Amino acid sequence: MEEKIQGVTNDIFADVVESHSASKLFEHLQLDRDAIIGILDNLVAILFPAHFANEKTPGTYSLKYEMGTRLSNVVNCLTDQVMVSLQQHPDYCNKNDEMRRDHAEAIVGIFVDSLPEIRQLLKKDIQAGYDGDPAATSFDEIIFSYPGFYAIMVNRIAHVLYKLEVPMIPRIMTEHAHSRTGVDIHPGAQIGEYFFIDHGTGVVIGETTIIGDRVKLYQGVTLGGLSTRGGQSLRGRRRHPTIGNDVTIYSNASILGGETIIGDGCIISGNCFITSSVAPGMRVSNGKGELQIIPDKK
Amino acid sequence: MEEKIQGVTNDIFADVVESHSASKLFEHLQLDRDAIIGILDNLVAILFPAHFANEKTPGTYSLKYEMGTRLSNVVNCLTDQVMVSLQQHPDYCNKNDEMRRDHAEAIVGIFVDSLPEIRQLLKKDIQAGYDGDPAATSFDEIIFSYPGFYAIMVNRIAHVLYKLEVPMIPRIMTEHAHSRTGVDIHPGAQIGEYFFIDHGTGVVIGETTIIGDRVKLYQGVTLGGLSTRGGQSLRGRRRHPTIGNDVTIYSNASILGGETIIGDGCIISGNCFITSSVAPGMRVSNGKGELQIIPDKK
Amino acid sequence: MEEKIQGVTNDIFADVVESHSASKLFEHLQLDRDAIIGILDNLVAILFPAHFANEKTPGTYSLKYEMGTRLSNVVNCLTDQVMVSLQQHPDYCNKNDEMRRDHAEAIVGIFVDSLPEIRQLLKKDIQAGYDGDPAATSFDEIIFSYPGFYAIMVNRIAHVLYKLEVPMIPRIMTEHAHSRTGVDIHPGAQIGEYFFIDHGTGVVIGETTIIGDRVKLYQGVTLGGLSTRGGQSLRGRRRHPTIGNDVTIYSNASILGGETIIGDGCIISGNCFITSSVAPGMRVSNGKGELQIIPDKK
Amino acid sequence: MEEKIQGVTNDIFADVVESHSASKLFEHLQLDRDAIIGILDNLVAILFPAHFANEKTPGTYSLKYEMGTRLSNVVNCLTDQVMVSLQQHPDYCNKNDEMRRDHAEAIVGIFVDSLPEIRQLLKKDIQAGYDGDPAATSFDEIIFSYPGFYAIMVNRIAHVLYKLEVPMIPRIMTEHAHSRTGVDIHPGAQIGEYFFIDHGTGVVIGETTIIGDRVKLYQGVTLGGLSTRGGQSLRGRRRHPTIGNDVTIYSNASILGGETIIGDGCIISGNCFITSSVAPGMRVSNGKGELQIIPDKK
Amino acid sequence: MEEKIQGVTNDIFADVVESHSASKLFEHLQLDRDAIIGILDNLVAILFPAHFANEKTPGTYSLKYEMGTRLSNVVNCLTDQVMVSLQQHPDYCNKNDEMRRDHAEAIVGIFVDSLPEIRQLLKKDIQAGYDGDPAATSFDEIIFSYPGFYAIMVNRIAHVLYKLEVPMIPRIMTEHAHSRTGVDIHPGAQIGEYFFIDHGTGVVIGETTIIGDRVKLYQGVTLGGLSTRGGQSLRGRRRHPTIGNDVTIYSNASILGGETIIGDGCIISGNCFITSSVAPGMRVSNGKGELQIIPDKK
Amino acid sequence: MEEKIQGVTNDIFADVVESHSASKLFEHLQLDRDAIIGILDNLVAILFPAHFANEKTPGTYSLKYEMGTRLSNVVNCLTDQVMVSLQQHPDYCNKNDEMRRDHAEAIVGIFVDSLPEIRQLLKKDIQAGYDGDPAATSFDEIIFSYPGFYAIMVNRIAHVLYKLEVPMIPRIMTEHAHSRTGVDIHPGAQIGEYFFIDHGTGVVIGETTIIGDRVKLYQGVTLGGLSTRGGQSLRGRRRHPTIGNDVTIYSNASILGGETIIGDGCIISGNCFITSSVAPGMRVSNGKGELQIIPDKK
Repeated sequence: MEEKIQGVTNDIFADVVESHSASKLFEHLQLDRDAIIGILDNLVAILFPAHFANEKTPGTYSLKYEMGTRLSNVVNCLTDQVMVSLQQHPDYCNKNDEMRRDHAEAIVGIFVDSLPEIRQLLKKDIQAGYDGDPAATSFDEIIFSYPGFYAIMVNRIAHVLYKLEVPMIPRIMTEHAHSRTGVDIHPGAQIGEYFFIDHGTGVVIGETTIIGDRVKLYQGVTLGGLSTRGGQSLRGRRRHPTIGNDVTIYSNASILGGETIIGDGCIISGNCFITSSVAPGMRVSNGKGELQIIPDKK
Repeated sequence: MEEKIQGVTNDIFADVVESHSASKLFEHLQLDRDAIIGILDNLVAILFPAHFANEKTPGTYSLKYEMGTRLSNVVNCLTDQVMVSLQQHPDYCNKNDEMRRDHAEAIVGIFVDSLPEIRQLLKKDIQAGYDGDPAATSFDEIIFSYPGFYAIMVNRIAHVLYKLEVPMIPRIMTEHAHSRTGVDIHPGAQIGEYFFIDHGTGVVIGETTIIGDRVKLYQGVTLGGLSTRGGQSLRGRRRHPTIGNDVTIYSNASILGGETIIGDGCIISGNCFITSSVAPGMRVSNGKGELQIIPDKK
Repeated sequence: MEEKIQGVTNDIFADVVESHSASKLFEHLQLDRDAIIGILDNLVAILFPAHFANEKTPGTYSLKYEMGTRLSNVVNCLTDQVMVSLQQHPDYCNKNDEMRRDHAEAIVGIFVDSLPEIRQLLKKDIQAGYDGDPAATSFDEIIFSYPGFYAIMVNRIAHVLYKLEVPMIPRIMTEHAHSRTGVDIHPGAQIGEYFFIDHGTGVVIGETTIIGDRVKLYQGVTLGGLSTRGGQSLRGRRRHPTIGNDVTIYSNASILGGETIIGDGCIISGNCFITSSVAPGMRVSNGKGELQIIPDKK
Repeated sequence: MEEKIQGVTNDIFADVVESHSASKLFEHLQLDRDAIIGILDNLVAILFPAHFANEKTPGTYSLKYEMGTRLSNVVNCLTDQVMVSLQQHPDYCNKNDEMRRDHAEAIVGIFVDSLPEIRQLLKKDIQAGYDGDPAATSFDEIIFSYPGFYAIMVNRIAHVLYKLEVPMIPRIMTEHAHSRTGVDIHPGAQIGEYFFIDHGTGVVIGETTIIGDRVKLYQGVTLGGLSTRGGQSLRGRRRHPTIGNDVTIYSNASILGGETIIGDGCIISGNCFITSSVAPGMRVSNGKGELQIIPDKK
Repeated sequence: MEEKIQGVTNDIFADVVESHSASKLFEHLQLDRDAIIGILDNLVAILFPAHFANEKTPGTYSLKYEMGTRLSNVVNCLTDQVMVSLQQHPDYCNKNDEMRRDHAEAIVGIFVDSLPEIRQLLKKDIQAGYDGDPAATSFDEIIFSYPGFYAIMVNRIAHVLYKLEVPMIPRIMTEHAHSRTGVDIHPGAQIGEYFFIDHGTGVVIGETTIIGDRVKLYQGVTLGGLSTRGGQSLRGRRRHPTIGNDVTIYSNASILGGETIIGDGCIISGNCFITSSVAPGMRVSNGKGELQIIPDKK
Repeated sequence: MEEKIQGVTNDIFADVVESHSASKLFEHLQLDRDAIIGILDNLVAILFPAHFANEKTPGTYSLKYEMGTRLSNVVNCLTDQVMVSLQQHPDYCNKNDEMRRDHAEAIVGIFVDSLPEIRQLLKKDIQAGYDGDPAATSFDEIIFSYPGFYAIMVNRIAHVLYKLEVPMIPRIMTEHAHSRTGVDIHPGAQIGEYFFIDHGTGVVIGETTIIGDRVKLYQGVTLGGLSTRGGQSLRGRRRHPTIGNDVTIYSNASILGGETIIGDGCIISGNCFITSSVAPGMRVSNGKGELQIIPDKK
């Protein structure tokens, strides 16, 4: 067995080294996933300390010190990780370490400035969750136990980094949320205010999706692309739908395609499969094998 | 950057303090999520020590000591957490600490007494899983590796606390199970004996659902509400369906509405979308764009 | 409360002991789930050290030592766990410890030998992911953050043990991946080269499924059985479909039944529910309540 | 063996319960030694963050947050422990919890106020160590690696609590330092400025010792009592010597007795055994079986 | 550097293997020091749970479960370690594993039976400490913070194993206590009741020492051998002194030699160096370069 | 209390910042003590893997991988720490980071090369311990449980770094050993082969001490300086004695002064206080208040 262990170790080791040398696309990155998840944990503890940091006494200086310690920690770790990730940024992959560090620090500075606004957005999302779910008994319950809230919180954090063109890190963050919640929101998706996802498992929201204000989604909803046959040649194009304001999409509905627009105020019933636009104010459901689209009488 | 850190810390800190002071609904709770998950971990280790506590020798006093230590721990921690949660209970939010502690201790006493019965129920669920899945090779495999079993185990624990009107804690427990398994069972759901969920990801079972004995569900099944437009005004009403005895519901079927009753012995095919009641003994499937409902010839 | 604790402890303890004595099917196993997950963690760290072991310098001897240490550890722990699991193997449950150890060592030897080939397969899966998803920016991103990649990695590991007839352990491994990713692939499934699952939540692939090369699946796809009414009597029979080469199956489609064959090059649209075979080169979609099956004009 | 375990557990348990009930002097205290050591660790990290907290950038806000977090933590934990310890204080053992808490908070407030002064004293001790030891290469080396410095740091902390009549906790602190350094300074000892102990192992400084400024001790020095035959009847009386300013006491010398005064500027050679007072400015050494006491010609 | 690492690793590895093969005295043992220290930690937590296990409520069943869990753990771990250590026992080094296990279990059985008696002895030692030290304020303080008490507690535990001829383990235990306390008591030493060591650092008590009841020692006392020139040829012979009942030995005194007997009731002053016997009731001190031995007038 | 915490934090923070800015001698170093102790732990695990790494099977490749992993780790961490420490080296404090790194790497290279020789030296020390102590039952016992062996092991490691003029780190290493063992050997001391310290507590060996081969020391022995009145002006001069070959020094003896030479083969009795040279072959003891120096008749 000792020989086997030695042989297999040598074999895989040689292959790792070769992959590393032969290709810029394989095994050359040194991001630290645990560090990135640690950054996320600190961020949610800063944003909602009573729920994610077990802070017992919100009105005290000790909380402030705790928050400051966490934020300093976020700044240090995130700067390091962004600097590494910039090795994959087309404009920075050939720059030296100092230039990458300068740019990483600039990015982290903008990111930190955005945190108070993220908290304001999330408070509106909590309000939307409370208003939208009869089972919700308090704002605290939303923050403590709704997976959809955790997913949108991570998306709002990761989306800021995505807009700043940080490679890889936003995806690692949202995939962590995906693993915890079953909700897969690409960091590129633009999402309006008062957003609420109930239950959440199986929700997929693609990279180029645009979502308006006061939108409510249920479990299993896909906001996706029509076909991926083009593969990498489709990179950068709008491939996912646009959802207007005040739209509700019930469970397991699919809305696909970059030219599909769901108008303001629409209600999409469960299991609908939609690949073309719907005018504002419509209610869409399945009936006799076809989508029924009729004006919504509230 | 130091100034930024200080500024953002001050900003968010002030907002947390303000939220805390201004509203009874924000940030005033001090539940400890990690403690609640620790309670769950101890409970499953007590219920099935060979599988969740790595106990090597089930027939020995050392196991008994281990179980007793865990149960003592559960009693202490759960009493503390219930006492905190009662701050959100309408009858106890204005009571003093001593009265809350007395009530918390009474609740925990009843809860502890229910554990042997919970184990008996779970043994029947294991039997149902073994009988219902040709891929299952032993009872142990069900306990060790079926996410549906873990989800129903947590539900049966949390449901006892829900019936005792403990705020928040049952939901934190079931959302922990949701995160691990993709199965979202509200602690309010009433579930009969010999219950089995296969694969499980995406299953949603709403708060006021009632499920009979010997029911089998597959992945993606929703037992949900018809519309949530009423929001908080719907709180407390029956919004989710009633499922009879001996019903099988295949993958991704949706059964919605508080007045929808699925009769005893029905079989619901995959992807069916049902919003009205079905008589006992029917087999429901999709055909030519409509649901086909015919008597089941076994 | 002390009396309650003592009473309940005695009650459950007695029941555990009785279950253990009365039945070969209850509580007699002593597998260590944490150890099995630790084995998995070491294996993925060996296969892709830059991404799962935070190894910073892939071209160095220190990496080799690290890999060798991990592999030695895997060999020791896995041999122990396989030896325990063989108590449930029909040919070994009545053998003595020495014979079980000999067989466990033989199994682990074959398993270790298969690791370099597993890495080659996984490199092809990464290539398939990169080619198939316009949102993917690099191979590294696939390895770091695609849940479908993690799921197939664990499947390829567990499948080797499944073929060697190791009881229980392969399922514990794939259920760990299921919990992290929402993708439920039974270790028995046979999966070809260049396999890619996008988003992944809700995917279910049954025990006797056979999948060809260059197949792409989206979230919520079920490759399942038609009916489980037969329960344990169906054990060992083909119950799940055969998927040809170059097939794409979009989100939430279900393909069911052991005699269902999807021909090479087919494209299955989202939400299709298929229970009979499809000829090669077809495009299947829903239309007016029926499946539309037409030749695919690429 | 199971019976043995049960029998011995019952036996010792019964004895613990009996000791607890029968006597106010046995097993009724609930201090948490680990918590007290954690308080010490936080205190030294606050006083010298670059050396005991691994803080890398002393001039930054993040350090301030870190220090504030630690100090808040010290306040909470120390208040709890002091409150418990007051059960053994003659004036507070019969008071209720609220009165104990009030007094504990008052004590901790005074203690916290004393920390800046403790740091100033310790900076002088560092200077004394650097000036007094030719082997010392920097102030940092004193702080990082001199056991005598750690022992005096803990003594200066514990002495403040001792003067505030906190039971037990000061001793637990100094015994922790004793265990780490071999230097046993009773928290009651009064020690002047610019104090230095070199090597330190075996040094014992008794409860009622008084030490002047600029005193230097070497390993194995005992400043102790003459006889302990009186036992508890001696409690509270001066039993240990008075050491003047600018005294140096070389290794393994013993100075004993509550009426023994070593005058300013004396030098005591190694191994001297002194039980009566020495006038200022003397040099004491052993010679021909007797102490030689002669004026010191510097 | 990589080559250096590889070269040095190979070099030392080869030497370790060679030492292992060439000699029965080198590197062939597989005792686990951390496990042995863990056993000690559990034992002191069983003996004095309020002080070493942070048990908050001594009069409850949860304490009993906790103690039982710890004792079961001790039995398992100690049996394993004793079995390994028996490879060095002259009567068992050539026996098979089963015989070693049988003997290990017999040893551990006797050891467990001795624990209640050890607790009774230790309670007398606590009484002796309280009576003998005016600085002691309670029994609890002795248990919590006197290093001499910890040292005698470990000695009384290790001595039982020593008498049962367990190789190595007793020494590893007493050296752990030595490291924590500076008190080095060989597990072979026989020590009577009501034993007290004050301060403790530097105390050495040799393997063949015999100590009576009510003996009190101070820091730096050596009860040692006269000459070690004979080396291994002296193994097994009485080499250390006999101390009678009611003897007090003050700090840094040395009493050497296997034929040296200190009679009952003697008082030995600090720094005395004694190599021959002293009659009962004497007071020994230094004077004019010689020992002064006079009757003690109490 | 919040105000107090804030005030004291601000006060100490300001003082730390000021100390840092005002002086090159205060708080500017960023060594990581825990990292240095981690390096030591890895080194002793490489040198004696069966005793300090719990390696169960010394003759296997897995051990080699483990050793290589540890050594790689040592190289990385030690290079970092040496680079930091060079900020205090007179020749490197004004150099840039790259030059410090180059020099650190050169130092670590030499250090690594010395490890096999250190192991050879230590094997001789083990032999000396076994031959010299009748209580020692095996070589393993020496390695497992003799504090003197641990102290000399750390000294031999730290001495190599001291000779390479690494600031601070050697002292932090030996003070760690001092804390564990009570044996204080300055890393500058030169120590010959076959060195043995029995019991060890209280031994002090000064920076400029030179010790020959086959020397044996007992607890409490001081090899120290005569006077430290000169303070820093004495830096670099010989201040401690020279001990010849084959010398035995019994407990608590003190040998002081840089011009004091103890000749080959001398035997120094316990408690002797020696400040001038002794010719070879002498036996020194106390008698009638004076040292008796007579030829040793073996």
